[in-house]
Amino acid sequence: MNLVERERGIRDVTVIGCGLIGTSAALALRRRGVEVRLCDLRPQAVRDAAGLGAGRPLRDGDPPADVVLIATLPSAVVPVLQDAQRRGLGRVYTDAASAKARILAEAGARGCDLASFVPGHPMAGRELSGPLAARAGLFEGRRWALCPGPDTAPAALATARRLALSCGALPLLVEPGEHDRAVAAVSHVPHLLSSALAARFADADETLRALAGQGLRDVTRLAAGAPALWRDILEQNAGPVASVLEEVARELAAVAAALRRPERPGGRTPPDPLTDLLTRGGAGRAELVGPAEDVRAA
Amino acid sequence: MNLVERERGIRDVTVIGCGLIGTSAALALRRRGVEVRLCDLRPQAVRDAAGLGAGRPLRDGDPPADVVLIATLPSAVVPVLQDAQRRGLGRVYTDAASAKARILAEAGARGCDLASFVPGHPMAGRELSGPLAARAGLFEGRRWALCPGPDTAPAALATARRLALSCGALPLLVEPGEHDRAVAAVSHVPHLLSSALAARFADADETLRALAGQGLRDVTRLAAGAPALWRDILEQNAGPVASVLEEVARELAAVAAALRRPERPGGRTPPDPLTDLLTRGGAGRAELVGPAEDVRAA
Repeated sequence: MNLVERERGIRDVTVIGCGLIGTSAALALRRRGVEVRLCDLRPQAVRDAAGLGAGRPLRDGDPPADVVLIATLPSAVVPVLQDAQRRGLGRVYTDAASAKARILAEAGARGCDLASFVPGHPMAGRELSGPLAARAGLFEGRRWALCPGPDTAPAALATARRLALSCGALPLLVEPGEHDRAVAAVSHVPHLLSSALAARFADADETLRALAGQGLRDVTRLAAGAPALWRDILEQNAGPVASVLEEVARELAAVAAALRRPERPGGRTPPDPLTDLLTRGGAGRAELVGPAEDVRAA
Repeated sequence: MNLVERERGIRDVTVIGCGLIGTSAALALRRRGVEVRLCDLRPQAVRDAAGLGAGRPLRDGDPPADVVLIATLPSAVVPVLQDAQRRGLGRVYTDAASAKARILAEAGARGCDLASFVPGHPMAGRELSGPLAARAGLFEGRRWALCPGPDTAPAALATARRLALSCGALPLLVEPGEHDRAVAAVSHVPHLLSSALAARFADADETLRALAGQGLRDVTRLAAGAPALWRDILEQNAGPVASVLEEVARELAAVAAALRRPERPGGRTPPDPLTDLLTRGGAGRAELVGPAEDVRAA
């Protein structure tokens, strides 16, 4: 890849996987005048995406694209990458899965070309899935993590960064393991806690439903995500997710034990796990949104 | 209390505790032309509430009110009730604490008059507290649980129901123990899980903060609540909260253990705790809001 190629913009992208993420990226790229070719095992998904103006179906004999964006289920990324590299579909390859270390390790173990592969993760989504849920503005102003491995070529990383910018996102360089630990805490474990809260209402009686309010609606919104997709995501990030879950489970059990202990006259003796959790929770919330935002919204 | 008294509307209410809930109820009652007298250990809270038009300060020699609404911290309800009854401040007494069985038991143990006491719980709130956060419409269309004990007089219950209706709320008759188990699931444990998630960000690094998105903001919103108030609430409902917390902690630990087990070829053998949790979570979310709402909102 010479300097001229590195400096120019992205001309063409092949999107493999025409679900919510792939089709949304394709729509954003089309807005910028990028040529987009679409590929999916489900012919209907390609037709739906093409029908939305996201590009045209990939054909045998198409020249290699500047970038191949793999937006399949996380567990399919490595086999799809291997196949795409064998077919020479692109000069640079990136993906959109929300866990990175395992994909990078498996891609290496399978003999994929790691120089042209830039593990990526656009931090956007909806509770809906499929091409018809796609939006050109889905990534606007959102972070797009780029997690190169030691073998990733700098020029490939630069191209992946341009792809993220062309979708309206803010590229963020993160080491794969650090990325995975972070998304376990910001996304994967919150999803499971949301599911654990919502699950209690799967066969709720009238009283329980009548007393459920907005707070519960907020904390259970994530539980509306597609179970099959989320199982795949969570298994790809099994280790970091299990670590955070174990910590949270231990903390909740400690608070339950504190609540079970009879109160002493004059109140609980410090350190009280309940007060400690509530105080740290308030501090963490303030870090996340700033106290002013809750004041405005409340 | 004769038939004529039962049929007429509420003429006057004394509100003890001029925080968010007490002042909001007072404002709603003033809109309906009810005379409201205000009382709080903190003179500034009474001044603030009165300044908002929520009523006038309670004075020695005021006649007994139709209803006394006790809107203090949960742990203060019983001593305040005892004192108010001794002083003859009202004909009917109700409270607004979010746990009921312990208050009812302690009121009985202290020798309070249980015939004129109707344990209550308006299901509304904000992340803010204090009289200046009050809103006349806070209870509009919200549930207001009424949890009479075996000794509560039917006429007192009827009066408490009119109070709830006068505040714009929908009265809901619930047995105290059932109420407490329900609010543990719909409110108290969600608050703790929200705190547990938010707590991880109290000393978050740059990457963690950069990757935090809207999903995390939703699930941590409850964590903005005042720690001292929430400790008091949770301790009042310690048993039911501990039970739900223990169940959730067990479920999270089981999912963590499943994620730690190496995958077998062909996938996990059922029953898989991860798939099970995600599936029940989706079903529970659909029960709570209806699937159509997530489709619209997403």
